[in-house]
Amino acid sequence: MHPNDPKLRSFIEVDPSSDFPIQNLPYGVFFTPEWPDLRVGVAIGDQILDLAELERAELIRFDGTDNVFAKPSLNAFMALGPKVWAQTRARISELLRHDNPELRDNAELRMRALVSQNLAQMHMPIEVAGFTDFYSSKEHATNVGTMFRDKTNPLLPNWLHIPIGYNGRASTVVVSGTPIRRPRGQLKPPTAELPTFGPCKRLDFELEMGVVIGQASAMGEMLTEQQAEEMIFGFTLLNDWSARDIQQWEYVPLGPFQAKAFGTSISPWIVTREALEPFRVHGPAQDPTPLPYLQQKGANNYDMQLAVDLRTEKMNKPGTICRTNFRHMYWSSVQQLVHHASSGCAMNVGDLLGSGTISGPEKSERGSMLELSWGGAEPLDLGGGEQRSFLEDGDSLTMRGWCQGDGYRIGFGEVEGTVLPSI
Amino acid sequence: MHPNDPKLRSFIEVDPSSDFPIQNLPYGVFFTPEWPDLRVGVAIGDQILDLAELERAELIRFDGTDNVFAKPSLNAFMALGPKVWAQTRARISELLRHDNPELRDNAELRMRALVSQNLAQMHMPIEVAGFTDFYSSKEHATNVGTMFRDKTNPLLPNWLHIPIGYNGRASTVVVSGTPIRRPRGQLKPPTAELPTFGPCKRLDFELEMGVVIGQASAMGEMLTEQQAEEMIFGFTLLNDWSARDIQQWEYVPLGPFQAKAFGTSISPWIVTREALEPFRVHGPAQDPTPLPYLQQKGANNYDMQLAVDLRTEKMNKPGTICRTNFRHMYWSSVQQLVHHASSGCAMNVGDLLGSGTISGPEKSERGSMLELSWGGAEPLDLGGGEQRSFLEDGDSLTMRGWCQGDGYRIGFGEVEGTVLPSI
Repeated sequence: MHPNDPKLRSFIEVDPSSDFPIQNLPYGVFFTPEWPDLRVGVAIGDQILDLAELERAELIRFDGTDNVFAKPSLNAFMALGPKVWAQTRARISELLRHDNPELRDNAELRMRALVSQNLAQMHMPIEVAGFTDFYSSKEHATNVGTMFRDKTNPLLPNWLHIPIGYNGRASTVVVSGTPIRRPRGQLKPPTAELPTFGPCKRLDFELEMGVVIGQASAMGEMLTEQQAEEMIFGFTLLNDWSARDIQQWEYVPLGPFQAKAFGTSISPWIVTREALEPFRVHGPAQDPTPLPYLQQKGANNYDMQLAVDLRTEKMNKPGTICRTNFRHMYWSSVQQLVHHASSGCAMNVGDLLGSGTISGPEKSERGSMLELSWGGAEPLDLGGGEQRSFLEDGDSLTMRGWCQGDGYRIGFGEVEGTVLPSI
Repeated sequence: MHPNDPKLRSFIEVDPSSDFPIQNLPYGVFFTPEWPDLRVGVAIGDQILDLAELERAELIRFDGTDNVFAKPSLNAFMALGPKVWAQTRARISELLRHDNPELRDNAELRMRALVSQNLAQMHMPIEVAGFTDFYSSKEHATNVGTMFRDKTNPLLPNWLHIPIGYNGRASTVVVSGTPIRRPRGQLKPPTAELPTFGPCKRLDFELEMGVVIGQASAMGEMLTEQQAEEMIFGFTLLNDWSARDIQQWEYVPLGPFQAKAFGTSISPWIVTREALEPFRVHGPAQDPTPLPYLQQKGANNYDMQLAVDLRTEKMNKPGTICRTNFRHMYWSSVQQLVHHASSGCAMNVGDLLGSGTISGPEKSERGSMLELSWGGAEPLDLGGGEQRSFLEDGDSLTMRGWCQGDGYRIGFGEVEGTVLPSI
């Protein structure tokens, strides 16, 4: 049976509401108090299957190389390429099947190779080679353009032709659970004559998906749609923390810099492109027709539900402030990657591509505080007398995502970050 | 004697016009046909001193670590920090002195450790962690603003307050001598209704200095002037190849992306900050006074002469098209670095910071074709009936730089790149 088959069952009990059934098998990097070396595992139910142990026990083997999973990142595994990714996922699926005794009946190995997620600490899953952030939701670009530029003509002339993107800062991409310190920066509200330097007052999140590139391409070469597709290893949730007031003053003419450089959070599990195959859908119609190098034959969006939860220090439990879907994105991840390499820009194993803020057509589907509070003009009512236009110190922001199958779901877990006061 | 002492002499003959006297000792990474392993060396006259050989011979030692120089980049050495940088440079200087027999009289070691630069192939000297490009020449920003925005008010409001910069693409930073393929991209001249995709028609260079960061800083922390100073390992020549037509169509609102992503060239030798100490000068007066976090006590510019040579396929020898000086830069490298970390952005060993195009007050001091040909309106006359507004296929572009001392100079060698036709 194919590892995506909905009928597959594992000998490990998995609740139907779990993000991590046997059809998912997302990769992450973790350690445990008893064994502090970083290594690669896959999530299954509420457990982690330690792949370094399986490799050591020779239940997983690679041609011509070893020690692929006893590593602090997925980069070495990703570098082996899409055929190995598919073979490995099929083998892990086989080892976890309810009717395969290899692991199921080896009590000693199970003891070593299965770790409760509660007892493990998750680490950055990849070594980020380069971080690029796109701007590919038409609803988000329209909302921003309406607020800051021209209500009657909110999209800039290039937007419908180019998957607009910019280079982000790789050094501050961190894993879920890492606190985010409120940045300081130059602030000059439109009414002030001169800028001042101090803590950001308009701190925001951006709900995005991260695409993890698992193969390199050469400098000076372009990519076809199929080549780009095959370079994508998987997807992760991504929070592109943003300082709107720093951004407003600094971004002309070379784009966002310190407004985005203080932190970007990703979820610890990389869901493989293969696991998402059953959930492919066509994106919105593209009009005008893109230039030939950006045209796609395949359905390259995904029906993926997304939610953002906010918990302030006063709240007992988080409240959901946004629900949307990745399928709304105007430019697909494959189009973004093809464009990224179009000038001859070399791509590397471990490159991370942010989709851009994912907003949907409805007000409740807006993927940032900027849009949800309409620039602060319409603060969000959180109940209990609390309101928010932007994020305050102590706020915890969590993003979740999942593709809903029939009786199971392919989930991403979550990406959480709590705002620390500025130093 | 201090390694910068002008009276120092080496037992290796060095011509007074050489870029590499004993007072310089820049670091690079090289290999030779006889021994293809990459290793670190310093330039001395027309030779390279192989530091991996000296380390193996125990003439250079490091506390608690070894194999620092038998490496494909300088990153391991840089990570050891500024005290080790100073000690190592002093030791290399000592070993090369005319009156020190340790290396001079060891014929067998000299045979192994001294390599003619003619016989060596230079390699990228650092593993670039992140590449950031600034925009810190007032003359350059004024020229660009005059051409494209507002002749009466060419500087944007933030320019005098912020060392404006953006994240570049690290994956295509290459060493001198690497050919640069003319990029393709979306082009939409102002008169065209729709964009087309094809080879760039306005290919340009940008004359810059690259600052190599040799120490890391933590996420969430800011830097003082002194901390930033001590993190700077050295300087290199940098050509920030630019596709002006791609840039013009893509850059709003998130800045340059594919227009700059296809290639950035650096010179193979990293001249240490210490070697440049005698050439420190104050930069231009800064008015308005920068915000306190950007204020400097020290003289943080350098009196460094720069030249750009162009050789077309028809020319017998290169012609100089620009002569300028690094001292004109409005924002210093230290101010750039302090600003870079000001939001809490973590800096890494191997980060490369481009200064931005270095233009001086005179017409002959403009550091790009865009400025030299005034957007194509005033093509450069190269003699022999040839003119250039932008770079053509087969053109070879070389940048040189040096600080002139009394009877010696601290030079950078050169960074060269030849334009290949688009595929």
